[in-house]
Amino acid sequence: MYNLLSGMRIVEGASFIAAPLCGLTFVQLGADVIRFDPIGGGPDFHRWPLAASGTSFYWEGLNKGKRSIAIDLAHPEGRELAVALIAAGGEAGGNFVTNYPADGFLAHERLVARRPDLITVRVTGSSDGRTAVDYTVNCATGYPYLTGPEDASGPVNHVLPAWDVTTGLTAAISLLAADRERRRSGKGCEIRVPLSDVAFATLGNLGHIAEVQTSSKDRPRVGNAVFGTFGRDFATADGRSVMIVAVTRRQWTALVEALELKEEIARLEQSVGADFAGDEGARFNHRAALFSLIAERMKTLTMPMLAALFSGTPVCWGEYQTVLEALRNDPRLSTENSLFASVAHASGASYLTPGFPGSVMSERRLPPPAAPSLGTHTDEILAEVLKLSSGEIGRLHDAGMVAGA
Amino acid sequence: MYNLLSGMRIVEGASFIAAPLCGLTFVQLGADVIRFDPIGGGPDFHRWPLAASGTSFYWEGLNKGKRSIAIDLAHPEGRELAVALIAAGGEAGGNFVTNYPADGFLAHERLVARRPDLITVRVTGSSDGRTAVDYTVNCATGYPYLTGPEDASGPVNHVLPAWDVTTGLTAAISLLAADRERRRSGKGCEIRVPLSDVAFATLGNLGHIAEVQTSSKDRPRVGNAVFGTFGRDFATADGRSVMIVAVTRRQWTALVEALELKEEIARLEQSVGADFAGDEGARFNHRAALFSLIAERMKTLTMPMLAALFSGTPVCWGEYQTVLEALRNDPRLSTENSLFASVAHASGASYLTPGFPGSVMSERRLPPPAAPSLGTHTDEILAEVLKLSSGEIGRLHDAGMVAGA
Repeated sequence: MYNLLSGMRIVEGASFIAAPLCGLTFVQLGADVIRFDPIGGGPDFHRWPLAASGTSFYWEGLNKGKRSIAIDLAHPEGRELAVALIAAGGEAGGNFVTNYPADGFLAHERLVARRPDLITVRVTGSSDGRTAVDYTVNCATGYPYLTGPEDASGPVNHVLPAWDVTTGLTAAISLLAADRERRRSGKGCEIRVPLSDVAFATLGNLGHIAEVQTSSKDRPRVGNAVFGTFGRDFATADGRSVMIVAVTRRQWTALVEALELKEEIARLEQSVGADFAGDEGARFNHRAALFSLIAERMKTLTMPMLAALFSGTPVCWGEYQTVLEALRNDPRLSTENSLFASVAHASGASYLTPGFPGSVMSERRLPPPAAPSLGTHTDEILAEVLKLSSGEIGRLHDAGMVAGA
Repeated sequence: MYNLLSGMRIVEGASFIAAPLCGLTFVQLGADVIRFDPIGGGPDFHRWPLAASGTSFYWEGLNKGKRSIAIDLAHPEGRELAVALIAAGGEAGGNFVTNYPADGFLAHERLVARRPDLITVRVTGSSDGRTAVDYTVNCATGYPYLTGPEDASGPVNHVLPAWDVTTGLTAAISLLAADRERRRSGKGCEIRVPLSDVAFATLGNLGHIAEVQTSSKDRPRVGNAVFGTFGRDFATADGRSVMIVAVTRRQWTALVEALELKEEIARLEQSVGADFAGDEGARFNHRAALFSLIAERMKTLTMPMLAALFSGTPVCWGEYQTVLEALRNDPRLSTENSLFASVAHASGASYLTPGFPGSVMSERRLPPPAAPSLGTHTDEILAEVLKLSSGEIGRLHDAGMVAGA
């Protein structure tokens, strides 16, 4: 948590990962983020993983530090409350993040009738208007045919919902850019961020579209090897796995030296006519020979031996670990890393909770906030933001238009 | 391309994906991005994929629309030019994106001596100071032990460098947030964004840390199934693969109806005592039975039959395709999608090139720009930004301090 964006208010009407992650990013940079949900929770309210109590760790993780109001969004009066919230907030407000349909009661054109300078950032599925989630976009990107063992026949899905995460971050960038422009022109806008456009744009930015379009050939599956350079997983003598990458000359030279393979590599270079230090493509093209040479050497080394050999060198490597192993052994996933604090959440559980993953070097990190219970801030928001009297708030509760925690 | 950030200038001294993607994002939103490189190119200048000409499609993809200046960064006079560039630019400038070491000539403390309101966003590897790239961070996140076939024994790497991409986007958010704060306080800052912190924070935001820490159990590998809900790949009668996901009640009900499996599902619900429509966790827990029921049905359907069955329903699905197949068949990866235009690049190749993946609904997209050749804008930048005379520029060329394209 930092205060870079304090004084900015975002209203979020959203579910799942992308749009809530956008809102979360604003929380972590100091903005006031008000999230409205249907009474009882939206479609993401029970998403796995769950706490033993049944609370969704997923919902909790994505909604930390937001203020929560629960509204009957099926009812016109409830919808009016949501619209009023989006339109409220004076100069601080006018920022709406959503994945609600573009043609419903939260259509931007309707909302601007209430607040002309509104910025709406709307996460959508497929750019052609079809419903899509991360996994039904990822299947279209070609990555599942590149991921997994070289001899795998079918597609291999990713587990990290990478398109959800990148779309959420792109939504945050969109809102910040639109806010900057509004300060200049006074004008808001709607920006739509389709998961599928984020995915295909990424393919383009990484040169993958150019590669395939100009060669009319798909990239082959290369297992755990890193395309176009030196990189793969290796097994150690004590049954651990490490990832080793040598993208630069310096990393390659250091690796060869640390593993005492200078002579063997020089012989191989001579026999195939390659310069592995100077040409990372050659390290990829001759990967079979290089992998087998290095794999042989790695089999003779335990993790502690390897760590000692690589320590203080520019070798680029890392040990594979499960999340449980990371929690037990990796200081980067502990309160030794100021990114994390142990926070008691509404689920009743206390666990390591991250703040913003960038570090503002001149500021002290504020502790990451807990997630709210659904509707915890209903009355506070109605009173403070919509200026409703306690009588009016009571009536809304009685009519079932809103609910508290 | 949009003009939301026109009037903003970013200086980029960076290589590989994350920091250059940050700069690219600013280009695509209308900022002037000046990238300096060592003469002959940095360590990413020959990164695969390559064009037939040897030009890096990767470098080209990540540096579209930037102005390029080539400088001898090993020489004090060249370094002074880079520092002068970072410090220049009046109110528009003062924004520096880099992955150069924090303790070298581009240390923030040194740069602020020249420009007190400077914002430096520095992408780093591991939060503990060690060198790291995407793949040596990913191995630490636990994902490689969750990715891939259920019976895989070792780690399975991702192919999309997801942490590079998310770190680049986080860097862009950091810069925009710091810029907003500077407009208020007049003060700049340095923000460091370690790949490993972005990765571990993502694990936390998705509830994964909470899950493992509170249960002291790692999540099991579940192949292509989507954790905690209904989702998997299925083979069709004509040898294609589709991804089907049912996260919501609506998606599940539509799927069961479209596949005419209401009776079979009802029988299964009765025999196991579950309500699949109302409980997505049950859809996951009983996935073996559900997958086999649906896989049987899918085997009787060809892709065209399936597309017809699902058309106009809320079923959430997508066809797996390679990049080549997408280029041939998917309108989302074509100039029918305004995200893309066919652009002639410095490599001599013309190919589909994406702009910003968000769509500003009230604006017309400007065409995505081509990548520069290395050093194309050297003289222009020296004259315009550093106000050097043509005599001085000539001397710098003669001394080998700078180079053109």
